[in-house]
Amino acid sequence: MAIVVKGADVAGSIKEDIRVRITELEKNGKKPKLMMISVGDDPANASYERGILKVFGELGIETEKTVLDAGISQEGFDEAFTGVNEDSSITGILVFRPLPKPLSIEFAAKTIDPRKDIDCMGYYNQAALSMGRKDCYYPCTAEAVIRFLKYEKIDLAYKNVVVIGRSIVVGRPLVSMLISENATVTCCHTKTRDISDRISNADIVVTAAGSRALLKGEMLKNASPNLFCIDVGINMREDGKGICGDIDFETVEPLCEKITTVPGGVGSVTSTLLAEHVVRGAEQM
Amino acid sequence: MAIVVKGADVAGSIKEDIRVRITELEKNGKKPKLMMISVGDDPANASYERGILKVFGELGIETEKTVLDAGISQEGFDEAFTGVNEDSSITGILVFRPLPKPLSIEFAAKTIDPRKDIDCMGYYNQAALSMGRKDCYYPCTAEAVIRFLKYEKIDLAYKNVVVIGRSIVVGRPLVSMLISENATVTCCHTKTRDISDRISNADIVVTAAGSRALLKGEMLKNASPNLFCIDVGINMREDGKGICGDIDFETVEPLCEKITTVPGGVGSVTSTLLAEHVVRGAEQM
Repeated sequence: MAIVVKGADVAGSIKEDIRVRITELEKNGKKPKLMMISVGDDPANASYERGILKVFGELGIETEKTVLDAGISQEGFDEAFTGVNEDSSITGILVFRPLPKPLSIEFAAKTIDPRKDIDCMGYYNQAALSMGRKDCYYPCTAEAVIRFLKYEKIDLAYKNVVVIGRSIVVGRPLVSMLISENATVTCCHTKTRDISDRISNADIVVTAAGSRALLKGEMLKNASPNLFCIDVGINMREDGKGICGDIDFETVEPLCEKITTVPGGVGSVTSTLLAEHVVRGAEQM
Repeated sequence: MAIVVKGADVAGSIKEDIRVRITELEKNGKKPKLMMISVGDDPANASYERGILKVFGELGIETEKTVLDAGISQEGFDEAFTGVNEDSSITGILVFRPLPKPLSIEFAAKTIDPRKDIDCMGYYNQAALSMGRKDCYYPCTAEAVIRFLKYEKIDLAYKNVVVIGRSIVVGRPLVSMLISENATVTCCHTKTRDISDRISNADIVVTAAGSRALLKGEMLKNASPNLFCIDVGINMREDGKGICGDIDFETVEPLCEKITTVPGGVGSVTSTLLAEHVVRGAEQM
């Protein structure tokens, strides 16, 4: 039976560290603070925001939200963004995206203070990430995967990792981060000939495709017996009752050494990483 | 016997296209112009510069070079860079890097006009590349690999590509570009357990490690019979007489369908791509 690596445990260890760092900041008279920026009030963001408020509340990190008029002009948005960007009491900025059309994120992405760019929306951090620099912020969901591996004390040198999915927010940055961590990485996607063949000799498989039961046990015939399967997918369950990941848990679990679940896995670590980034922002100011 | 795909042929087809586009630009009263910026006069850049001048001369594209004092201050460099960046007669900028210490490229990377950033040194283009956007400039050497594949009319969907090397200028951007082109990509490097295992079922192998005879015939046992091997490496030959690539040509050539050589391969296309970018810069102005 595989060990289920729990998001709550990974998040818990990060929170412990965050608490120490907040105490340290307080000694120096510094205070982390998150500003969320939303244009209009998209209900799609509600559950994400609730998750953030819960974690930040638990850690005692201040949050504020700027809700801009749904019909705001580009100049108005850029001006409001600049105000937040230049406010020295704000140590992290989260813009709920995508912005309603025809607003563009361009100006914000170009000008955001890299130290406040906690969700890696700015060109500087995206460029730094793609160049393999480790002093930048990573997109939280992709970083959460790395944190699961670190929590399990896995050294990625000489390990084969398969990432299924090539999205801008998870698959692509994850490939870059894993290469920086010395993993040998294969990126599979909808145009891959034979994913099970690409998984041969894999030590770690990460599913981030958003496709229910994408990874099945029969695909793991030639994978390592010490396989770790990490599920980043979020899909509606077939019966409509809640969410599930990309991994067909029933058939995959018996064939690997470690596995994560959805819910209860990667998704439950992202808000904690956002909090960590806001604290890091404060440390850098 | 493998077909040797020649850099001169690939460059030739790009030059043909460039000539048509320059004629088109002239009709609209536009003119491409490259500005090279060098701090001091590093002899390491001499052969690169000679190659550029040869290609640009052949195509009739104007070039100019700004040589800044080796002891220039950061402010002085940034100011000189801004002058070139804002000069509307310049449609492409090439800064010879690395800059001598302690000069930083930071300001230039942040402010360069994306349309003039022909060598992908700016954050905007690096970010766009990593996000899989195709409207940006790619680093020329990595792009040259893609052009060899396009010249051979290879559709990368459902193809397995192995990239050996993870440098900032070739390996990493190439991985990102290949994913955008629908290839299933594996990135191997010095911390890869067994490169020959990772090559199993590969359709294309790109060597960009800078390590003589890194890829040997014995490593290709399970690769596709239609294998295309592309060599980006540049190394001194063992006998000291000239350069060679990363591929052990003698043992690899009999086992693949197509192959490139060093010299005469990828390296001979990069200056032509730089010219293409300067022309594209002019088209966007």
